[in-house]
Amino acid sequence: MLEKINLDKSMTKQEYKEFIDGITPRLALLQRQCKEERIPIMVIFEGWSASGKGTLINKLILPLDPRGFKVLAISEETEADSFYPYLRKYWIETPAKGRIHIFDQSYYRGVTAKAINGTISQEELCNDYDDITEFERQLVDAGTVVIKFFLHISKKEQKKRFQRLEEKKATAWRVKKRDWKYNDQYDEIVPFFDEMIAQTDTDYAPWTIVEATDRRYATAKMLNTIVMRLQEQVEEVREKKRHKPVSEAHIGKESSRFMPGILNNVDLTKDYTKKEYQEKIKELQRKLAILHSELLRRRIPVILAFEGWDAAGKGGAIKRLTQPLDPRGYEVIPISAPNDEERSHHYLWRFYKAIPKAGHIAIFDRTWYGRVLVERVEGFCEKQEYKRAYNEINRMEELLTKEGCVLLKFWLHIDKAEQEKRFVARQEDPDKQWKITDEDWRNRSKWDQYEKAVDEMILRTSTGNAPWIIVEANSKYYARIKVLESVVKAIEEAIKRKK
Amino acid sequence: MLEKINLDKSMTKQEYKEFIDGITPRLALLQRQCKEERIPIMVIFEGWSASGKGTLINKLILPLDPRGFKVLAISEETEADSFYPYLRKYWIETPAKGRIHIFDQSYYRGVTAKAINGTISQEELCNDYDDITEFERQLVDAGTVVIKFFLHISKKEQKKRFQRLEEKKATAWRVKKRDWKYNDQYDEIVPFFDEMIAQTDTDYAPWTIVEATDRRYATAKMLNTIVMRLQEQVEEVREKKRHKPVSEAHIGKESSRFMPGILNNVDLTKDYTKKEYQEKIKELQRKLAILHSELLRRRIPVILAFEGWDAAGKGGAIKRLTQPLDPRGYEVIPISAPNDEERSHHYLWRFYKAIPKAGHIAIFDRTWYGRVLVERVEGFCEKQEYKRAYNEINRMEELLTKEGCVLLKFWLHIDKAEQEKRFVARQEDPDKQWKITDEDWRNRSKWDQYEKAVDEMILRTSTGNAPWIIVEANSKYYARIKVLESVVKAIEEAIKRKK
Repeated sequence: MLEKINLDKSMTKQEYKEFIDGITPRLALLQRQCKEERIPIMVIFEGWSASGKGTLINKLILPLDPRGFKVLAISEETEADSFYPYLRKYWIETPAKGRIHIFDQSYYRGVTAKAINGTISQEELCNDYDDITEFERQLVDAGTVVIKFFLHISKKEQKKRFQRLEEKKATAWRVKKRDWKYNDQYDEIVPFFDEMIAQTDTDYAPWTIVEATDRRYATAKMLNTIVMRLQEQVEEVREKKRHKPVSEAHIGKESSRFMPGILNNVDLTKDYTKKEYQEKIKELQRKLAILHSELLRRRIPVILAFEGWDAAGKGGAIKRLTQPLDPRGYEVIPISAPNDEERSHHYLWRFYKAIPKAGHIAIFDRTWYGRVLVERVEGFCEKQEYKRAYNEINRMEELLTKEGCVLLKFWLHIDKAEQEKRFVARQEDPDKQWKITDEDWRNRSKWDQYEKAVDEMILRTSTGNAPWIIVEANSKYYARIKVLESVVKAIEEAIKRKK
Repeated sequence: MLEKINLDKSMTKQEYKEFIDGITPRLALLQRQCKEERIPIMVIFEGWSASGKGTLINKLILPLDPRGFKVLAISEETEADSFYPYLRKYWIETPAKGRIHIFDQSYYRGVTAKAINGTISQEELCNDYDDITEFERQLVDAGTVVIKFFLHISKKEQKKRFQRLEEKKATAWRVKKRDWKYNDQYDEIVPFFDEMIAQTDTDYAPWTIVEATDRRYATAKMLNTIVMRLQEQVEEVREKKRHKPVSEAHIGKESSRFMPGILNNVDLTKDYTKKEYQEKIKELQRKLAILHSELLRRRIPVILAFEGWDAAGKGGAIKRLTQPLDPRGYEVIPISAPNDEERSHHYLWRFYKAIPKAGHIAIFDRTWYGRVLVERVEGFCEKQEYKRAYNEINRMEELLTKEGCVLLKFWLHIDKAEQEKRFVARQEDPDKQWKITDEDWRNRSKWDQYEKAVDEMILRTSTGNAPWIIVEANSKYYARIKVLESVVKAIEEAIKRKK
């Protein structure tokens, strides 16, 4: 998922100054309130080397009362550490009620390093991450706030920072040989961080990815996240005392500025000419027909999940996909609002029912992601429910894919202007008028809320086994080709694996 | 833990009739209330072959409105099943809101059978159980009640039942060759069921072990468990609507009759003569002195945890244990009420701090089990907190033992009469008066509540890695020898493993 992050975000000096002036007194107040309410707080900084963890921690503690926090720099394991179970050190360093412990790297460091260096098996890694989530769960269950930051910079940016450090005598010692080695291997390391985040991103202790190219932006996002989270917790503790449900109104709106902005980063100018399109589609469909019979023979199940803006072209893409398929071997499953029977079950129930059997293809036109999209935005489920859903969905997809199923998830992306153009065109075409309803216009008016929900969805559910594929769909030609290409490639790889 | 269950429990016909007359209308009413409150209910029956699952299910459905439940008999995996991920079948069969699904065996069957037959690795087994607890967690999070029974009979009883079935032509077919094989291997199978229960016994979906020798007793315990659990859930749902915390008062008292009764089953007449004692203790202490230096050399950490009734002789046993030890290599850690600093942390924090380093022995005089004993009985923690604690403690002990630590837990058991004798003796002896306080007498007055808490503790936290050892302590001689013998044996085995 890290590759999907837009790392160009920044903030001007002026913006930053205003932001800091506004947030500093709020943070100081929250520290006092958390002390009063006896809330323990753990803030964890992980991320690339030279991503600015130290700088951010300095910015964080500036407004804090020094009697109430402690910074813990976690370096490599010492020999003394090796006499004890791994997590003991961190258990001991958990904050007392009302105190803030800030970790400059943490228990994540050691585990992930072992994974990167290949000194740990996949099973052991899963077990270690499981121990960590259990540790965090126990703390949160007992009232601790756990805030986790991953500071993200690009390979190029990291290299630049190393060079700058080496230029000065005073800082040259900070760049180790190993740092350069890791910079060389940046692209191979990304999947390890991806896995760390995916396996330990829970509703009770979620990760926040901080785009750390621009220090002002990174500082602002970090402070904003902490303030939002502490405010929420203080409210919750206070409301609980009064035995009232928590209303979100008190907590304040999250600034869209600090959202991941994955969609904003998509290049919607990509296109093909009609001729290119026709040639490519013919070849891809030919391949797909052959692959389909191979799937059946090797009993590989395939799930293709389509989400996207209204009028983004899901129907057209699905049509091009199914044309070459043997109708006995696939099914298109359109998902709309749940019926009475479905509503009376767990929201994932109807999807478990629709899992394709080995060798078959199931194409979902809208999916289980409705929970974190429409149900979230329209308030059809509670906040706790959609927050829990990211992990529930990841677990479901893990169950599917670990037994060999190919699972691809497409987000068909168009911009707001393109959507309007298509809506209007539909209204003017008597054959297509049925395709456009008042609800479409209503949804459109909530574009920003949906965009925020999509961003978070892609971030929290792009896993190694079941990645999101963002399809640039302002051009229908381009979108259809990209979908077919992705499907062909994934099936080819799965067949190779099963040989 | 199964070996600790007293399987001789029974009920007279008269008692049973009265019980059934009382509970039947309550169960019928609860079914209606659960329908009204739209609560989905899953009841799972697992257990030994011929333990009476079918009979119990028949007894359960008798008072129920047949329109509201469904019985699902789960047999071996079919070829059709193998086309899908394992848990899909069970996801599909989850009950709709307000309905009861009764499983005659369930997803546990297939996984545990693979473990018993050795067709699955330890890692895969852990992962499968993890998938199961996650499945149950998702259901419970969405409001489902999950009730799990394990029907337990002895090897002898199972054999008797097989023979009786074979005697009659009408039932002979029900006993398969494989059943006899499993009866032969009964003792080897016990640890697999123990592990299944330990790994999937959670606060949100706990197991109830049903002593199934006597069908009347088994039926009564099963019905009682279901009625208690449903009543609790209905109350919770209703109170939540009114935004009030749940009071336990509404739910009614659990009958001690259906508690595991592990302590009742302990033979307290065991004893040694003074001569036997002196010979044995000398020999054991000699061995222990040698083993202690071996521990240090091989860097094996040891934790010895002592719990027991007041005046059961913990101090005396610990003294005999430490006499031969090198004082630089062990520590006795007396645990009393937490101080201010400890109270301001997670309740396990002070124990993580006290973990011995590799090669050392930590002897705890009272332990982390205070959470589920004194804190539970005296109301120092909330119900949810002590219920969660069983799993939290199991996880902590797993963290310790998986890295090679020897962990033994002793419950020193005396009966109520013996305790009184010792209390009185202490009061009359000027040298020992300090040992007895008003608090001891107060605790004694809550003997029954403590007994219930101890029973549940032993049942829920006796794991393969960290078993409870019940020490028959009416005879101090016997108790001290048993403690030393257990320690010597465990250390010898650990050294053998580390060779």
